[in-house]
Amino acid sequence: MSKAPTQASAGPVAIICGGGSLPFTVADTLRKSGRSVVLFPIHGWADPSAFAAHRHHWLHLGSAGRLRRLARMEGCRDVVMIGNAIRPAIHELRFDWLTLRLLPRIFPIFKGGDDKLLSGVAKIMEDQGFRLIGAHEVCPEILVGEGPVGLIKPSEAHVHDIERGFELIAAMAPFDVGQAAVVAGNRVLAVEAAEGTDYMLDRIAALRAEGRIRIPDNTGVLVKSPKPAQDRRIDLPSLGPLTVEKAARAKLAGIVVAAGETVIAEPLRVAEAADRAGIFVVGRRRPGAGQ
Amino acid sequence: MSKAPTQASAGPVAIICGGGSLPFTVADTLRKSGRSVVLFPIHGWADPSAFAAHRHHWLHLGSAGRLRRLARMEGCRDVVMIGNAIRPAIHELRFDWLTLRLLPRIFPIFKGGDDKLLSGVAKIMEDQGFRLIGAHEVCPEILVGEGPVGLIKPSEAHVHDIERGFELIAAMAPFDVGQAAVVAGNRVLAVEAAEGTDYMLDRIAALRAEGRIRIPDNTGVLVKSPKPAQDRRIDLPSLGPLTVEKAARAKLAGIVVAAGETVIAEPLRVAEAADRAGIFVVGRRRPGAGQ
Repeated sequence: MSKAPTQASAGPVAIICGGGSLPFTVADTLRKSGRSVVLFPIHGWADPSAFAAHRHHWLHLGSAGRLRRLARMEGCRDVVMIGNAIRPAIHELRFDWLTLRLLPRIFPIFKGGDDKLLSGVAKIMEDQGFRLIGAHEVCPEILVGEGPVGLIKPSEAHVHDIERGFELIAAMAPFDVGQAAVVAGNRVLAVEAAEGTDYMLDRIAALRAEGRIRIPDNTGVLVKSPKPAQDRRIDLPSLGPLTVEKAARAKLAGIVVAAGETVIAEPLRVAEAADRAGIFVVGRRRPGAGQ
Repeated sequence: MSKAPTQASAGPVAIICGGGSLPFTVADTLRKSGRSVVLFPIHGWADPSAFAAHRHHWLHLGSAGRLRRLARMEGCRDVVMIGNAIRPAIHELRFDWLTLRLLPRIFPIFKGGDDKLLSGVAKIMEDQGFRLIGAHEVCPEILVGEGPVGLIKPSEAHVHDIERGFELIAAMAPFDVGQAAVVAGNRVLAVEAAEGTDYMLDRIAALRAEGRIRIPDNTGVLVKSPKPAQDRRIDLPSLGPLTVEKAARAKLAGIVVAAGETVIAEPLRVAEAADRAGIFVVGRRRPGAGQ
């Protein structure tokens, strides 16, 4: 893992922005700490309305040359990637010359799972002379810590399901599948793959409504954890108010995420949503997690 | 594993019937081989219209005493369980005295995954003096063999995805999760848990329609395989025409099931559906499968 950047690295930080509020949290934190930032929102992912307050340049996916040129022009060496991303369709990509030259390296990346996609992109970026930094390294407050986010805590009854969820995600690690599972009373109800966490929670709600999962209300735990091999600089699992609302609609007892390895968007709204729904949202140290 | 029954075991075979056509295939095969049968269709699972041709007694789930009494009265010692089952709600159960006496053993079973549920039921049955026999042991023609079921075969391009699917299912074995996954170009698109195979395929179709999975049509393989520890007498994965239609609607290239360990309902209709949809349906030996 790369070291946290110091003020000595100087120059503004280039923030490549996906969707959601996290890019702005990171930008604000960096500015407060005295570092300037240049935002690079991605067409189709980032919300155009919110960028006026920051120096920014829009990017199309695939415009590696434009990114390299603008970032160099702005004097950026450190790059942070943060925000929600969706796997793009080929027709959404805008290849420029640099991207075309990199294509032989990019294509094999696209054939793998998400881990390969992201770590491949990171590697290419470093070869272009940039230093990729984890958003949580410059802005640790975006990480979920140990303990409850809202007021409610899991009980002894949930301990086993939580452990089982972490173990299952670890066992699937070699397959680069999902980062989440739902466990209820020792039974695995759902495993996340390409559909994403929110969609998986919708499924639990639907299966319950249809009577295909028959367990008491307010049982079941969503466990969310990075795969052990994941590149934490670019792909930490994230948690926001929407996930809490969906977990509540799926009538789960709560959510457990890997403490120190999960990004939280809008923590106050997450806590409010959890308390309102009467479910727990808790950071817990992933078994086997390093320092 | 228990030995295949011989004519010497005599007495009619009690067939506890879930939904679908398989119970009748098994009943017909047994009768053709000279053994008589008594069917015990389960309320809520089995279709009432089809039982007139066979000697039968309806059972409610939970009526262990009634089953034991009737099966003894009919002179049955061998019991086969076959057909589609749905995890019951507590209010659908009709407990009789024997069931009540067995409750302290049944409750812990219900708290585990499907494996525990089924193997627990099997054990209780044997303690009551019955011999539980796999439907495929008395009726091997219900198993998918090695090779294509229809006319289309998988190509070299699919070999890796097929292997990855089998490996993933084996890795999840300790967690008693699903029996199926969808892999496309080395990427795991979906993992089956409580939702079942057909529902998982609907999800792939929906994610493709919404553009959330963006891969060419006619790619992706459904791999279906029993968990290594599964009790094959009562819980072999099954395949029918509906699964083929759903795989086609999910725009997969094909379906691979564990040869010799997967039950096929209506093989001719499966082959027709596969050929019509232009997808392969293939039995392949599961890596590590025994004799």
